[in-house]
Amino acid sequence: MLNQEIINFANHLADIASEISKKYYRIENGEIAKDDDSPVTKADREIEEKIRQEIFKNYPTHGIIGEEYGNHQENAEYVWIIDPIDGTSSFIVGRPIFGNLISLVVRGKVLLGIINQPINSERWIGIEGSGSWFNGSKIKTRNCQKISEAVLSSSSPFFFKDFNKEVFEKICALTKYQKIGGVVYGGDCYAYGCLASGFVDLIIEPGLKVYDFASHIPIIKNAGGVITDWEGNELKLESNVRLVASATPKLHEEVLKIINSI
Amino acid sequence: MLNQEIINFANHLADIASEISKKYYRIENGEIAKDDDSPVTKADREIEEKIRQEIFKNYPTHGIIGEEYGNHQENAEYVWIIDPIDGTSSFIVGRPIFGNLISLVVRGKVLLGIINQPINSERWIGIEGSGSWFNGSKIKTRNCQKISEAVLSSSSPFFFKDFNKEVFEKICALTKYQKIGGVVYGGDCYAYGCLASGFVDLIIEPGLKVYDFASHIPIIKNAGGVITDWEGNELKLESNVRLVASATPKLHEEVLKIINSI
Repeated sequence: MLNQEIINFANHLADIASEISKKYYRIENGEIAKDDDSPVTKADREIEEKIRQEIFKNYPTHGIIGEEYGNHQENAEYVWIIDPIDGTSSFIVGRPIFGNLISLVVRGKVLLGIINQPINSERWIGIEGSGSWFNGSKIKTRNCQKISEAVLSSSSPFFFKDFNKEVFEKICALTKYQKIGGVVYGGDCYAYGCLASGFVDLIIEPGLKVYDFASHIPIIKNAGGVITDWEGNELKLESNVRLVASATPKLHEEVLKIINSI
Repeated sequence: MLNQEIINFANHLADIASEISKKYYRIENGEIAKDDDSPVTKADREIEEKIRQEIFKNYPTHGIIGEEYGNHQENAEYVWIIDPIDGTSSFIVGRPIFGNLISLVVRGKVLLGIINQPINSERWIGIEGSGSWFNGSKIKTRNCQKISEAVLSSSSPFFFKDFNKEVFEKICALTKYQKIGGVVYGGDCYAYGCLASGFVDLIIEPGLKVYDFASHIPIIKNAGGVITDWEGNELKLESNVRLVASATPKLHEEVLKIINSI
């Protein structure tokens, strides 16, 4: 179990990310920035820099895996995984459903995850063996037992190719909201928070990087959900992971069976 | 020009929509509601009922076109068009990017439009001949002159079929963010607000209903943007409209040329 000091520190890192995100959100002045000079790129870099500095200062023996600045002591006992801005496209188009992702891995297991939405002041935190909270209130996933009643979310159809696309289309065709094609797109990390809170039942994605999903593991598991790869294995902390997250074990089992029958 | 009294009344209607939306947002209790008894359906009905009552009481000669309860005196000089919850799927999955849409048509022309996001307390209002505002600050579209620099948004790929799909895919292939497929999905009305505010440059949609887009016309035009059908005609206040909205006249012209060359 994690002690309160390190949980407070994780929240402190999320507070830093909030402050910097707000500074760069919706600040375009009518002209189009180049990608490497855009507000979201600046926010991405500044958040990760500040968070790394805080970790170096307070926990010099800890490791870091960051989206922007790579790995540092990644074989340490404690490793922080940072995605400063997840949902870049939401940030770019001015939608407050992107997030700052922070997680803490202890001896290879993610014990703490944070999805932080800075503009709406929304924070999901999951602590292994303890629970998941949204802005301080304990949360649980919805009691969805069947794919035919499941609300499905996924980042974008564009990321599914070939076999993965076939699987995705099969799943979409079996979910609840057929009049919108069976799936709500976008949301990125925000959709995982909403799954933990009981508004989404199922998420399927074809190729996430470790910093895209590490924080989601304790948030979803400790809210009663299940998150594995498409074969049903526990998620390895590596990249190009095909991921499925479900509100209940029964729904998860049904979805895995469908995936593996194709 | 509209007088201040009627602008205040339109804002009052949006305030009513805000209050009811908040009451039904994210209130599921772990069980799955039937479609006709879901929180979003209840919010949809209650908002439109309350708004209609207010119009009946204050402006009995005015007409109404509503998503839920149909037409009333739709040939009147003043007609209100109401979409109580636009972006139902965002509401359902707990994303605060749905909106309450209210517009006022005077002798066939939309003179006032409101996109109201109740959870974030965000309101776009456009008044014909006067300007467009976001939460009281005047807004303008971004100075995007070329499709290769344009940030494209659209509700869902699912709504594009056959020829419309061919057009959509051609447009996507020419826009700025090719690494995400050239388009950001979702957002519905919220994306139009963000276009007026300068964060999105282009929106293309294949089949909107009149209450889905009427409010967007004055918001986009009076922020410097252009909104027409795919042939370049002014939008008729009817349904099944294929719509394109652009940040600048030059971008709009380029996009129409591409559409009409297919």
